[in-house]
Amino acid sequence: MSSYLCNTTLRLSDMRVFIAGIDGYLGWALTLHLASRGHTIGGADNFSRRKWVEEVDGESIIPIHSISERLSVFQEHYHKSITFYEGDLCDYTFVKNSLEDFKPDAIVHLGEMPSAPYSMIDVRHAVFTQTNNLVSTLNILFAIRDTSPDAHLIKLGTMGEYGTPNIDIPEGFFEIEYRGRKDILPFPRQAPSWYHWSKVHDSNNIMFACKIWGLRATDIMQGVVYGTRFYDTPEDERLFTRFDIDQCFGTVVNRFCAQAVIAHPLTLYGKGYQRRGFLPLRDSIQCLAIALEKQPKQCEYRVLNQFAEVYGLTEIALKVQKVGKDLGLNIELSNFENPRIEKEDHYYHADHKHLMDLGYKPTYDMESELKLILSDLIKYRDRIEKNRHVLIPDIRWDGTQKKVCKLNK
Amino acid sequence: MSSYLCNTTLRLSDMRVFIAGIDGYLGWALTLHLASRGHTIGGADNFSRRKWVEEVDGESIIPIHSISERLSVFQEHYHKSITFYEGDLCDYTFVKNSLEDFKPDAIVHLGEMPSAPYSMIDVRHAVFTQTNNLVSTLNILFAIRDTSPDAHLIKLGTMGEYGTPNIDIPEGFFEIEYRGRKDILPFPRQAPSWYHWSKVHDSNNIMFACKIWGLRATDIMQGVVYGTRFYDTPEDERLFTRFDIDQCFGTVVNRFCAQAVIAHPLTLYGKGYQRRGFLPLRDSIQCLAIALEKQPKQCEYRVLNQFAEVYGLTEIALKVQKVGKDLGLNIELSNFENPRIEKEDHYYHADHKHLMDLGYKPTYDMESELKLILSDLIKYRDRIEKNRHVLIPDIRWDGTQKKVCKLNK
Repeated sequence: MSSYLCNTTLRLSDMRVFIAGIDGYLGWALTLHLASRGHTIGGADNFSRRKWVEEVDGESIIPIHSISERLSVFQEHYHKSITFYEGDLCDYTFVKNSLEDFKPDAIVHLGEMPSAPYSMIDVRHAVFTQTNNLVSTLNILFAIRDTSPDAHLIKLGTMGEYGTPNIDIPEGFFEIEYRGRKDILPFPRQAPSWYHWSKVHDSNNIMFACKIWGLRATDIMQGVVYGTRFYDTPEDERLFTRFDIDQCFGTVVNRFCAQAVIAHPLTLYGKGYQRRGFLPLRDSIQCLAIALEKQPKQCEYRVLNQFAEVYGLTEIALKVQKVGKDLGLNIELSNFENPRIEKEDHYYHADHKHLMDLGYKPTYDMESELKLILSDLIKYRDRIEKNRHVLIPDIRWDGTQKKVCKLNK
Repeated sequence: MSSYLCNTTLRLSDMRVFIAGIDGYLGWALTLHLASRGHTIGGADNFSRRKWVEEVDGESIIPIHSISERLSVFQEHYHKSITFYEGDLCDYTFVKNSLEDFKPDAIVHLGEMPSAPYSMIDVRHAVFTQTNNLVSTLNILFAIRDTSPDAHLIKLGTMGEYGTPNIDIPEGFFEIEYRGRKDILPFPRQAPSWYHWSKVHDSNNIMFACKIWGLRATDIMQGVVYGTRFYDTPEDERLFTRFDIDQCFGTVVNRFCAQAVIAHPLTLYGKGYQRRGFLPLRDSIQCLAIALEKQPKQCEYRVLNQFAEVYGLTEIALKVQKVGKDLGLNIELSNFENPRIEKEDHYYHADHKHLMDLGYKPTYDMESELKLILSDLIKYRDRIEKNRHVLIPDIRWDGTQKKVCKLNK
């Protein structure tokens, strides 16, 4: 068992944890980790992530197995089973029946459409993204109220909800003085895509549910996650989690690493000075476990900014280049016309103290982590080569319009 | 023609205005007013408002006519026609085809589910409210982008989006200093129902569409509207707009007036000190016309707080009592257990300067307005009596749960 939870705050163990989106990148990794920590796992999925990646012509570079194989390999290693519910979180009856049956102490909601570019394809994808994410979250909130009101909801949001304001970003709320009066208010959100806005809509709805029904919830503002590895996994490739590299479902560091492996120039969007918070997959899983085991009080809506460090995109590309060189890879950087509408050179300073206070020990050594990813990916060079066509973005934020407000003055 | 637009700013006339929700309380009133001002009107509806009111067992106290009768009486008086499109704003093809056909200079989006209590009935109504409102607005945004990117969107939001913070409420945005740095940011929203949150989700989506596509939009944060009358209406009862008094679709002043007419005690929720911004129907219509005729620049997302004055609910009940007494009505006040979860005694100060600057002349004399409403309603005393059962609220914010966070410390 990992020792990252070493401070003295009361820790909950042997919980019944329901993971919505258990078949996804984070969902499957979290499942294995929580099982290793002694928790009992249930979860739901309708395999949407697999279908969306297929739709955009991608595939997981690390081969993944069907849910039934995953469940039986899990049983082999852990000598216990996962209660799996196949269904759509947008179907209230399914959500309610699943929670009623499983009787969770906590619900981790990872079951949303997670891609900004996918949400920007067209009106159908924008509407799907926002309704899918909003309805699944509303359904989970109502089902918790109606079946397990003491259970703790952990909901995956994103640091992207905040956008890139010219002031510091606190964790969810801030005290402000305005015209001589003070109040503690939700920090204003300025999300950069229909997807990111869907997460803002969720955050608002969750905050409201805690207020009117006394639910307890943790809303995770997560930075950009990268990596192949996580804690406590048996060395069995059949248990690996997925790894996407396409323009929609591959996050930037994972995409850079895949590009590096096949000597494709690293695609920096625009100036490449965009700054974001990042964390390795293992840290994301660590943080989710901490949030679970150190739950908020009833009625509390808790916001945690979840990332290890802030980097500019060019900095990261240079790190990938450097680490790749040690592995014999010849890597170029290329400034690609930015398909997004975003500030490319901006102030960025965000708090991330709450998780540290709860015991989170960040992986500060990004280069070691990059080395692991590159080593893992080199084995799948042929699969990346085969997916070369998904590495260049063609989904543009401006739709088909010419007239776009200039953000980068 | 009304003379409220008397300042010298450029005024647009003879516009083609598309009204989404043309059959509703505001939609129909706005149609008549804009037609009187020389604009050409098109509009869409699927008669949802009529169905929702029926669903909660209410009916319009002022009898209203079918859309086909309305359209033909309109033709009689105005000697021109309205282009009417029957369909659902949640159907993108319908929205796109309608705009493509009508070629609007401006779109006024009044076509949403407008009731807080209706959204609080259960999970189905919460999900319906949020998806209906969010999808209709997304569809309109995409259809404007794809068919008429220069057209001005006027969207009906609500002052309720802001909630009741302990600081002044600006109009949409405010400059703040935080830890020694400054930025102009969207004012944080703290909406009090699933319905109000749906309007916040819309506001966020509209702001984003203006940013990425360069659309121009006015987002109206409207106070509580009351009244039966508006400007420039031919004296023909067949053209009157609807008037609801049920717990869902009747707003508080209209409900008080209906209660007064049948000697039903005025139902103050809780302490009755809740403070809100109010405006008569005629002012709402006036403001929407001003916003239309004095449009924002391309790329601009403009927020207007639209109300005349702020009152506490008890103040209003006392005004109704006083005006009613002059009309021979015997009116009692009754403090009813609050079905909502809201602060009942709080600071409330909101800016509403933008519309004044554009030429809005508020109706400050609420008592004259109340006298008009009561006189109009007395004619329909029997209909109100018949609807007595919808005057008492039974939709509660706390669902079936006992454990609710105390907001009123």
